[in-house]
Amino acid sequence: MLPFARVTIIGLGLIGSSIARAVRERMPTVRLTGHDADSDVRAVADRMGLCDDIADNAGAAVTDADLVILCVPVGAMGAVAAEIAADLPADAVISDVGSCKAEVARALSEALPGATIVPAHPVAGTEQSGPEAGFASLFQGRWCIVTPIEGGDPVAAERVAEFWRRLGSDVETMAPEHHDRVLAVTSHLPHLIAYTIVGTADDLAEVTQSEVIKFSAGGFRDFTRIAASDPTMWRDVFLTNREAVLEMLQRFSEDLSQLQRAIRWGDGDALFEHFARTRAVRRSIVEQGQDDAAPDFGRTHG
Amino acid sequence: MLPFARVTIIGLGLIGSSIARAVRERMPTVRLTGHDADSDVRAVADRMGLCDDIADNAGAAVTDADLVILCVPVGAMGAVAAEIAADLPADAVISDVGSCKAEVARALSEALPGATIVPAHPVAGTEQSGPEAGFASLFQGRWCIVTPIEGGDPVAAERVAEFWRRLGSDVETMAPEHHDRVLAVTSHLPHLIAYTIVGTADDLAEVTQSEVIKFSAGGFRDFTRIAASDPTMWRDVFLTNREAVLEMLQRFSEDLSQLQRAIRWGDGDALFEHFARTRAVRRSIVEQGQDDAAPDFGRTHG
Repeated sequence: MLPFARVTIIGLGLIGSSIARAVRERMPTVRLTGHDADSDVRAVADRMGLCDDIADNAGAAVTDADLVILCVPVGAMGAVAAEIAADLPADAVISDVGSCKAEVARALSEALPGATIVPAHPVAGTEQSGPEAGFASLFQGRWCIVTPIEGGDPVAAERVAEFWRRLGSDVETMAPEHHDRVLAVTSHLPHLIAYTIVGTADDLAEVTQSEVIKFSAGGFRDFTRIAASDPTMWRDVFLTNREAVLEMLQRFSEDLSQLQRAIRWGDGDALFEHFARTRAVRRSIVEQGQDDAAPDFGRTHG
Repeated sequence: MLPFARVTIIGLGLIGSSIARAVRERMPTVRLTGHDADSDVRAVADRMGLCDDIADNAGAAVTDADLVILCVPVGAMGAVAAEIAADLPADAVISDVGSCKAEVARALSEALPGATIVPAHPVAGTEQSGPEAGFASLFQGRWCIVTPIEGGDPVAAERVAEFWRRLGSDVETMAPEHHDRVLAVTSHLPHLIAYTIVGTADDLAEVTQSEVIKFSAGGFRDFTRIAASDPTMWRDVFLTNREAVLEMLQRFSEDLSQLQRAIRWGDGDALFEHFARTRAVRRSIVEQGQDDAAPDFGRTHG
């Protein structure tokens, strides 16, 4: 049995358009409706046939839905929820794909009192944005974290979990607050660090930008990928998951100071010991299928 | 005309074995001799037929060479140079592949007074180590930086440059001190940051290691690749290029503090502005062929 028969996607960027493609491929009988606040994006989505219908406003998009997924930056969730409040069917389930869950759960609950809300977060993406960047297999083999609201409907949570399994994801359930701490370290802090170092390199005077680009294969280029991610999305993540990000950042800074000290004082043993243990983490990630085994990310050579 | 007819490679790890393979493929008439301090590595190299000869000691490996390339950690360059000093033919050119050039140039000059020394650094590699990890196309389309010694032989420098061009590299020439500052930002600092954050994540108590691994696709996994690099090589790099690394790290820390402050005070405009400009750096790297254009490093999905 299909978990949902009429799905509405609000926000047709990388994630929203990938959900649309994956639903088409894996649950072809589902009736898909889409909406995006940007009329250019709506036109592209229409031309590409991403959904059965592209609605001109968010309210019209949800009138017939049994699942509504909000795929907008986390800072916009509350406003979009308020926009659909009057038109939302009583039995519809509301979900989202935001990278911060406690604050989004709060914003959705406030804007949609009495609605059935099941926040979720597919841990998947690329550095690209927009409806043309999406693809059907984006969620395949990746985790989707469902963060049910306390006192929420467990049947609705299970239907949302099943929806993500149908799209190829493994599903894990956890409390929103715990999600936000886990993602602060596995996603938010890495993005902040990458954005920082790319900016630092870009600002150097005595090393030219052209040298930074040319010799980026020494390691720097790895950081530029996630530092090319959508600026609006990431601004919102850092403003929304502030406490957890600042705490993880504090720990990172302490660890960095320790290595800095080892370099300054020539403590080779401390450096070696640190560098030797981080190798095992990579091995586990590859073993568990969360990254490709090919060296150098399988980049082409020659 | 071949730049060199008899090439000796000391150190048969990822880089040394890749040079051997590339020479075989692109300059098949060159007579190749190899040596590694580790007898297991010599046995593997012998079995794989990496070179025409595998010598049991470094001195015996160089007696007939017109080019000797030292492919050992930068901290071992001086000792290896001292080991070959007595057997080195007077007309041989000595080069290396180390990631720090000023200190290596000094160590080689001291150990081999009067020898023709041309330090070089192919900016290429993977996170893997050892003779089995090498491949012939590793240097294809990547830059090799030649850092001639002041007052050195320009003809020898040009022969080393031509050798690298034959292996598929583009060659750039610069002063050793400038090289060390450029690489501090494009390679050494990124490795230090990656090693740090992977250690930070590994140490967390309330977020389990299994959660870090599972949800690493949110960005963290990108950092684990270079944090899986050879610990000895990287210990030596940080001890050797200390001043430049500490200075770049200081700048990075200042920039990170600024973003931290923007997060703490909710300054969304400052965050957006920073995140928007780093995208262009990625675009330049892809345009100049220093990384693949495929989203998400071309990782397989599904």
